[in-house]
Amino acid sequence: MLSRKDLFKDTLRKAAHAWKRIIELRLSEEEASKLRFFIDQPVFTDLHWGMFIPAIKGQGNEEQQQKWLPMAYKMQIIGCYAQTELGHGSNVQGLETTATFDPETDEFVIHSPTLTSSKWWPGGLGKVSTHALVYARLITDGQDHGVHGFIVQLRSLDDHLPLPGITVGDIGMKFGSGAYNSMDNGVLRFDHVRIPRDQMLMGVSQVTREGKFMQSDVPRQLVYGTMVYVRQKIVADASSALSRAVCIATRYSVVRRQFGSHNGGPETQVIDYKTQQSRLFPLLASAYAFRFVGEWLKWLYTDVTQRLQASDFSTLPEVHACTAGLKSVTTSATADAIEECRKLCGGHGYLSSSGLPELFAVYVPACTYEGDNVVLLLQVARFLMKTVSQLGSGKKPVGTIAYMGRSEHLLQCRCEVERAEDWLKPNVILEAFEARAARMSVICAKNLNNFPNQEEGFAQLATDLAEAAVAHVQLIIVSKFIEKLQQDIPGKGVKRQLEILFNVYALSLLHKHLGDFVASGCITPKQGALANEQLRLLYSQVRPNAIALVDAFNYTDHYLGSVLGRYDGNVYPKLYEEAWKDPLNETVVPDGYHEYIRPILKQHIRVARL
Amino acid sequence: MLSRKDLFKDTLRKAAHAWKRIIELRLSEEEASKLRFFIDQPVFTDLHWGMFIPAIKGQGNEEQQQKWLPMAYKMQIIGCYAQTELGHGSNVQGLETTATFDPETDEFVIHSPTLTSSKWWPGGLGKVSTHALVYARLITDGQDHGVHGFIVQLRSLDDHLPLPGITVGDIGMKFGSGAYNSMDNGVLRFDHVRIPRDQMLMGVSQVTREGKFMQSDVPRQLVYGTMVYVRQKIVADASSALSRAVCIATRYSVVRRQFGSHNGGPETQVIDYKTQQSRLFPLLASAYAFRFVGEWLKWLYTDVTQRLQASDFSTLPEVHACTAGLKSVTTSATADAIEECRKLCGGHGYLSSSGLPELFAVYVPACTYEGDNVVLLLQVARFLMKTVSQLGSGKKPVGTIAYMGRSEHLLQCRCEVERAEDWLKPNVILEAFEARAARMSVICAKNLNNFPNQEEGFAQLATDLAEAAVAHVQLIIVSKFIEKLQQDIPGKGVKRQLEILFNVYALSLLHKHLGDFVASGCITPKQGALANEQLRLLYSQVRPNAIALVDAFNYTDHYLGSVLGRYDGNVYPKLYEEAWKDPLNETVVPDGYHEYIRPILKQHIRVARL
Repeated sequence: MLSRKDLFKDTLRKAAHAWKRIIELRLSEEEASKLRFFIDQPVFTDLHWGMFIPAIKGQGNEEQQQKWLPMAYKMQIIGCYAQTELGHGSNVQGLETTATFDPETDEFVIHSPTLTSSKWWPGGLGKVSTHALVYARLITDGQDHGVHGFIVQLRSLDDHLPLPGITVGDIGMKFGSGAYNSMDNGVLRFDHVRIPRDQMLMGVSQVTREGKFMQSDVPRQLVYGTMVYVRQKIVADASSALSRAVCIATRYSVVRRQFGSHNGGPETQVIDYKTQQSRLFPLLASAYAFRFVGEWLKWLYTDVTQRLQASDFSTLPEVHACTAGLKSVTTSATADAIEECRKLCGGHGYLSSSGLPELFAVYVPACTYEGDNVVLLLQVARFLMKTVSQLGSGKKPVGTIAYMGRSEHLLQCRCEVERAEDWLKPNVILEAFEARAARMSVICAKNLNNFPNQEEGFAQLATDLAEAAVAHVQLIIVSKFIEKLQQDIPGKGVKRQLEILFNVYALSLLHKHLGDFVASGCITPKQGALANEQLRLLYSQVRPNAIALVDAFNYTDHYLGSVLGRYDGNVYPKLYEEAWKDPLNETVVPDGYHEYIRPILKQHIRVARL
Repeated sequence: MLSRKDLFKDTLRKAAHAWKRIIELRLSEEEASKLRFFIDQPVFTDLHWGMFIPAIKGQGNEEQQQKWLPMAYKMQIIGCYAQTELGHGSNVQGLETTATFDPETDEFVIHSPTLTSSKWWPGGLGKVSTHALVYARLITDGQDHGVHGFIVQLRSLDDHLPLPGITVGDIGMKFGSGAYNSMDNGVLRFDHVRIPRDQMLMGVSQVTREGKFMQSDVPRQLVYGTMVYVRQKIVADASSALSRAVCIATRYSVVRRQFGSHNGGPETQVIDYKTQQSRLFPLLASAYAFRFVGEWLKWLYTDVTQRLQASDFSTLPEVHACTAGLKSVTTSATADAIEECRKLCGGHGYLSSSGLPELFAVYVPACTYEGDNVVLLLQVARFLMKTVSQLGSGKKPVGTIAYMGRSEHLLQCRCEVERAEDWLKPNVILEAFEARAARMSVICAKNLNNFPNQEEGFAQLATDLAEAAVAHVQLIIVSKFIEKLQQDIPGKGVKRQLEILFNVYALSLLHKHLGDFVASGCITPKQGALANEQLRLLYSQVRPNAIALVDAFNYTDHYLGSVLGRYDGNVYPKLYEEAWKDPLNETVVPDGYHEYIRPILKQHIRVARL
């Protein structure tokens, strides 16, 4: 209910408070990050700690790290990450901001040559940051060396006023009433702003005093380590956001009753309706599935880091495709799922006090940032096509794409399901998903050959390619869930529940993408119907433990922030209580009555001054 | 950017202004309704004119209409429609509010016996309405006669204070920052409030002076007329909302460029990417499809009205199923489509100035009000099952379900498509959609027989039944589009464009639901692939006329309210301009700097008072 200004100020207060605590309690970096997480509102510190510092660490040379990091760690300076521009998002190489080296003064001149080159969106930029990591085209001696990072001071450390040549401000309201409105996403223009040469991040490339551009022999692949880290975090966040929404919808589905009263008895809990179960339980299963694949990505990150340190770049293409695909598929699914959970709460899900509208509004940008989800799928597809084209070459596909090595078998295998319960077998499911993914890729590869050149074909078949990529990524999630089940899970009951959730996840996907499976001949229509039948039985098995399965996420009522999702189920009295807190209820007769309502009722409207 | 209170007051102002104009210009009812439409924010007058007055017209007797309607038409009283309660939405028969007849005083006592019986959600109730149409259980002499409507005065006409026994207020913030926050959706409790007997709406049922309950011989089916009217309007609104979102996304997709620059030339317009086309053009086609089916529903309404007047109730079940299904399918599709259009605008779609976040927030309740979309699909499914069960009986299905009369043929027909262009023939498409709908219904009917009783089967198979209902409704939309194409369309070029859009609509649905079509044997996998191939060619044909096709919706920039969707395409300068209007930009140094930012930078945070 706060105005934009009040909301923003209030969030500044929370961030300052958290920082005070972090210092007082001498928290470790990990503890501090956890505490900041519970601010639970987008705020400038997200960018300072999550982007500005890591970028200096990753792209700065030793000297630069020694100079800037201590200040940043103490927050003597506050930084943001100024990459995207009004006219350029996904295409980073198309950025227009220029950083021209002036050998006379040993400086770079940072400039915004066009309106569309205005930096646009960076969080923390609009009102708070003193410094920015600015991505700009490096130009030396008239030559364009592509996009590089530069540390630029934006505001005076004395009075916080923008420095000469810098125009900076907030880009305005965004989706929702809270959500990212607590963040000062900003706009930034440079009018020939000069910075010392050593403020170009020189970990990978350098410009010498003479203005000579040099690339160090540090392999560029090292940046992939950061990317895997960021994407692993996004997948973990997807699981968190999804589990939060599912927790609310599941708890409220038990509280809410509608229809089905027998002889004046209580009505049916809506969670007992198959239509509710078939929408809700696949999302519950997805929350678990994304969590497990997220845990695996954590392992993958350490694995990649070790390999990079040993200069082993062999797994990078596969790792890149896998993380890009998982980022895309899990965030898209989560965004849709939060809105579905809201709908599953019926009318009351539309109230802000349900917590779901703002959860949606704050989550959806995940589909766009750190790689637009469609662009990422096409990157996965490129990797898939390359893998298919190399199948005959003797080069063995590894990791998540290893199944392609068995494509000869997968292109002709037949699903052996004869009864509904056959669909409970993980290996049956796995093979169906492998066969679907392999066949969709191979069909795309074949169709590409009908075009005069690869690029034209890729452009024309982009939609099919994106679908093949989704099939590949869903297979990864399915297979990581199976690996989880094969691990040592404490408690037989827990393992049983996870098995059920696995089957729900896989078979609901199969039902949703039935066209893929049947049209590619992986399964027969009859087998599809059996899967659906089994799915219905599985829903009945999830039902008795549904509440336990969401309680296991271990969210406090405070963090969940939802009247509908309360742990104690005391929904209606609290909804009623909450309503009266609205500012409109401060007075019985509303502001505006005398000007705009009474003249209507009293038939004085013609002479009313409006 | 307004606070809740300011937003609410501002909307009161707009409503009063509109009413002043309506009186000054002596507008007809239709003209007035058009003018109110352009307030373009939910406001109490929507309920006064759209629900309160129609209900008195439809359910009041002559005397009541003569007494109340003139006051309502002059807005000497302002009314709302108080049906839903905290604990009851879809299940109207489960409402708990009571209206107990007291023969001693010839009054009804209106009472809220429980917390969950609190009226909850009615628009215009919270702060404005002087009267409400309250739905309550009629009780005479200890007997419960079910739910009926009562006119209850809520607030004094002198000072607007709630009358004794009435607790009333606003239910609080809802989705979005604007959207329904301009409306005073309200909560209402009665503590033994007395109203005269003649304030029960007595058009259909009566209570006599002696307290005898009587049902008039006016057929109850007459209420269906109103329902068809309301749903026809909802479908028309779906088409409007969808066309608005599509207009924004299409225009911006032409402005936005990303990647694909050759030799420093301009980058590719994103509308030229197949991934963009395959998401956007089906939505464009849907906007047209929903418009045409909406026009047909208008005709249906007049047809039903005439039949009802002639006491011909024969078409009612079919009309009910058809309107319920169209309400469900078009509103669900539109809600999803608005969000998809937002995503199609990339990052900038997340800005409020894109117009899309609020369009989404204000639209989504349409999936819930006037019948929850899932509940409605199940009503359609019941009708379908009944139709299937009567197939052998000689009773010929009529209207939109007539195709079931040819089910023998449809269950075994084979699609004749051999080449991609065969998919351009309307009769080929129609038969495929008919076959799919018929087969899905028949399979459900067969599976129902496996259960001990119909109700248990219906509960277990609810998800399959809902899917069969969707197939039926999509067929209706497809067939009405074909009927439109057969009408006399002025201009050969226009007709050609509509034909292309029809094919895009039908074939994109076919692709999306490929599993239905292939698994039920309506088409072969090969034919599915040909449809997809044809679809790609169709997208290329839509592309050159995409802008003309959205310009045809004829929205002014003012009404569209989107910087991204501007007619002149001058997007970036306007986005830049718009940003500076945010309240956060009123000062260069933000409110909160001295308290919360400076102490951090200056390392004074430990002693800062937060």
